[in-house]
Amino acid sequence: MKIGIIGAGNMGAALGKLWARAGHHVIFSYSRDENKLRELAAAAGDTARVGTVQAAVAESDVVLLAVWLPNLEALLQTAGSLDGKILITCVSGLQPDFTGQTIGIPTDLKLSVAETIQQLAPTAKVVEAFNTTFAEILASDSRQFGSDLPSVFYCGDDSEAKQVVSSLIEECGYEAVDAGNLLVARTLETLATAWVQLAVSSQLFPNLALKALRR
Amino acid sequence: MKIGIIGAGNMGAALGKLWARAGHHVIFSYSRDENKLRELAAAAGDTARVGTVQAAVAESDVVLLAVWLPNLEALLQTAGSLDGKILITCVSGLQPDFTGQTIGIPTDLKLSVAETIQQLAPTAKVVEAFNTTFAEILASDSRQFGSDLPSVFYCGDDSEAKQVVSSLIEECGYEAVDAGNLLVARTLETLATAWVQLAVSSQLFPNLALKALRR
Repeated sequence: MKIGIIGAGNMGAALGKLWARAGHHVIFSYSRDENKLRELAAAAGDTARVGTVQAAVAESDVVLLAVWLPNLEALLQTAGSLDGKILITCVSGLQPDFTGQTIGIPTDLKLSVAETIQQLAPTAKVVEAFNTTFAEILASDSRQFGSDLPSVFYCGDDSEAKQVVSSLIEECGYEAVDAGNLLVARTLETLATAWVQLAVSSQLFPNLALKALRR
Repeated sequence: MKIGIIGAGNMGAALGKLWARAGHHVIFSYSRDENKLRELAAAAGDTARVGTVQAAVAESDVVLLAVWLPNLEALLQTAGSLDGKILITCVSGLQPDFTGQTIGIPTDLKLSVAETIQQLAPTAKVVEAFNTTFAEILASDSRQFGSDLPSVFYCGDDSEAKQVVSSLIEECGYEAVDAGNLLVARTLETLATAWVQLAVSSQLFPNLALKALRR
């Protein structure tokens, strides 16, 4: 297959190398530093080379878009015809410092449910947990997926309370993963929303569970 | 441990039973149907019983909040003192039909980045993928986490293009999971935002990967 890589950042570099080493013809393009593209192509091997964005698009069946969001519109206007091309995007709306989303999610997020609970019960030790867990799995005979245990993230501000909740998670047949303080509930609740929607859209609901792999 | 369960829906029922069977003292509370609570306690075994919300809170060290969001504020106002209690919440801001979020994420989401790309390149075959994948893992010698392969979700509207992308995902050393059509990019991009934030907040970044367990 002929694959054009647009963007020489971490994602474009890594995917382009992997595909070139798998034997595909890869064109690296779109860097302010032409040397970076040449080094990438050399590292990727005989089936990789450097080209313009226009060549990477015109000569490929598959095009990977791995650029910063602010550059996207101008890039697409000059890339040439994308008619019928397979366009893979991993472009993120996330800002580079992870502080906010430039699209989709506003940066003026309201409090999470968990933080709201903490405000209503200020002396309680609030811990959020189990929100990516489907009740259908909880209610079944086992939480195992083959030999795997799903992960349950938890977060809170009281370390003793978190230790207790961690044990309770494990007793249910899950692996407990400490996600941080209660502020992280904003993230966990967002993750949970996306996870359940994804389970539904992929038609895997409810026999789907999230495992956090670490190494 | 003494655990009060508030809410007799799927989550409260399942967790209460699991903890009771693990030997904890569990009080089931808060259902419009008193019989449902009694059946739950009977099914959970000798260490489980039924009580009022006030008793479930007062007599427990740990309280699970598993109620609908609209009921939450009134419930907490009548629950008695939560001072020092470990309060586990899996309360979701998600609406029961999964169509929207009542807190945190507005329902008038803008287009995803992938849909924006599709509008800018209307005859291209846009597929979103790799957005929960950390470049540091991609760039390393192997994508394996022990014997596990992480999952990469992908979505798009063209089935042939999706098949091609699925193969490209697998060639990188990932398991490919079809998440649905391009509209699902809104969810995938939201998931990706939350996932990277979670990796950072849990201090596991970048040696963290998501695996979708199925059964």
